[in-house]
Amino acid sequence: MDKIRVGIVGYGNIGRGIEKAIQQSSGFELTAILTRRSPDELTTNSPSALKLHVDDALSLKGKVDVMILCGGSATDLPVQGPMFAENFITVDSYDTHAKIPEYFDAMNAASKKAGIVSLISAGWDPGLFSMNRVLAEAVLPHGSGCTFWGKGVSQGHSDAIRRIDGVEAGIQYTIPVATAVEKARKGEGELLTTRDKHLRECFVVAREGSDREEIENKIKSMPHYFADYNTVVHFISKDEFDENHTGMSHGGFVIHSGKINGSRQTMEFSLNLYNNAEFTANVMIAFARAAYRYHQEGRTGALTVLDIPIAYLSEKPDDELRKNLL
Amino acid sequence: MDKIRVGIVGYGNIGRGIEKAIQQSSGFELTAILTRRSPDELTTNSPSALKLHVDDALSLKGKVDVMILCGGSATDLPVQGPMFAENFITVDSYDTHAKIPEYFDAMNAASKKAGIVSLISAGWDPGLFSMNRVLAEAVLPHGSGCTFWGKGVSQGHSDAIRRIDGVEAGIQYTIPVATAVEKARKGEGELLTTRDKHLRECFVVAREGSDREEIENKIKSMPHYFADYNTVVHFISKDEFDENHTGMSHGGFVIHSGKINGSRQTMEFSLNLYNNAEFTANVMIAFARAAYRYHQEGRTGALTVLDIPIAYLSEKPDDELRKNLL
Repeated sequence: MDKIRVGIVGYGNIGRGIEKAIQQSSGFELTAILTRRSPDELTTNSPSALKLHVDDALSLKGKVDVMILCGGSATDLPVQGPMFAENFITVDSYDTHAKIPEYFDAMNAASKKAGIVSLISAGWDPGLFSMNRVLAEAVLPHGSGCTFWGKGVSQGHSDAIRRIDGVEAGIQYTIPVATAVEKARKGEGELLTTRDKHLRECFVVAREGSDREEIENKIKSMPHYFADYNTVVHFISKDEFDENHTGMSHGGFVIHSGKINGSRQTMEFSLNLYNNAEFTANVMIAFARAAYRYHQEGRTGALTVLDIPIAYLSEKPDDELRKNLL
Repeated sequence: MDKIRVGIVGYGNIGRGIEKAIQQSSGFELTAILTRRSPDELTTNSPSALKLHVDDALSLKGKVDVMILCGGSATDLPVQGPMFAENFITVDSYDTHAKIPEYFDAMNAASKKAGIVSLISAGWDPGLFSMNRVLAEAVLPHGSGCTFWGKGVSQGHSDAIRRIDGVEAGIQYTIPVATAVEKARKGEGELLTTRDKHLRECFVVAREGSDREEIENKIKSMPHYFADYNTVVHFISKDEFDENHTGMSHGGFVIHSGKINGSRQTMEFSLNLYNNAEFTANVMIAFARAAYRYHQEGRTGALTVLDIPIAYLSEKPDDELRKNLL
């Protein structure tokens, strides 16, 4: 089979993860890396890949099979997504849960117009976790599901801390509360509040002369991010921060517990990730294979991970999967 | 949407589980229960369902949408499967892993000929576990996967014990070895032997006057079933057996551990089941929904759980899934 020719749009943590995933894979070829910065200033690990400004993307038509969109969900993807989907098969990891229907509609319109497919929200949550939520609910309709995140680094919450005056460096770990996890396994997940489920632990380096009490208050009272949670703030030195708090570990689990005729049945899916961005990139690459296969079958429009048969994610032929993994 | 009209073929533990699952669901209607026994002697919990001998199945053409085949994999399904697949959409939980390719081919030929679909091996292993094995390998190709079963009752091994002379009652629990599970999580699963991974614990009621030492030796040396494992045999009274060892709990987990650029990433899927047969029945019912939807789309031939988009398992429409569960 010919290699799938990939373009990476956005060369941050996920974009670099895609590059590495392609280097470790036999089924893909990295054709181009697109950036909003000046392409000449970009240092990549793929000498043979073209470096282009995103504005020049159209010159890649016919040269790239799948564009992997690695921009952020807040401002990049709502603009870039439909633009790219009008011209290329795309895969992204759009993760603003509340706005998924809106984003899906925009991507669906763009890729229908182009007569090709786009696959949205293909990370781990949304993504693999979503697949497990739907699977569990379909198998155990009389039950309740519960998703926990962590222990791991939340990039969004860490950014929020760093924007506070007087903060030199900061990181936030999301930690599932053990007693809440046990309740979810017993089918009592629905009763849990936001505050019950996760603890937010912050490690902050304060600038010299700044008011630590004020920083702590600002963090703990920040709406959406911290106010609804039990939050713990530790002030540490820059040295300690650099030594112990620069990782990108994450993970979590989807627990679904249901009763059939009064008997408890529990399904659980968990991830334990040393590097969140690189794992997400690997998920996106597997879904790029599926998107390309659906395109070859003549399908058009937007898709999500819920629309993909699992065999389409594998590079192995169906008969080999049936023989060795079914 | 019209209810999907179901026929149950075989009224054992799984067949009765299907009956209960349908009673708890809004999307299905139980039309008929088929048996190889005399139908008049069958006592069911569904007064409105027809009771028929399997030989009279053809009279149900046009009255049943999906036949759920609940027979055993050793002798029932290889014969019944293709026979039914020539006339009805079928779902089964065929679980003789080594013979899946052969069974798939027979089912594929039968349902292609009929211009309809059949869905094979839709339980939890093969089934949900297979989906997770393929998903994990696709996302983390540089890794190793490991499946553990238990702690739970193996029906096949319990049967094998009961066939030994002098055994009045017996049950076998498959128990994953904790140190092996930890190794799998560290990515060392490939090095584990059959003996390393599972312990087999047997509880046996010996008939009066029988030779316990001989029974124990016969169990421990039985090829395929026990000889390759560390096996523990306990002799207990009939009262203790009846009180503590009549359940059908089971479960297990699929662990896949892979490295991306030297960093460990672990995916894990686990089931903790109070009643194995009833859970399997619930899985089959969800896949019956998917098989029927594929049939309505005009697809033909045999399918497995690897060919089914997860959204097809749910009774909820796609836009609702995207909004609430993605």
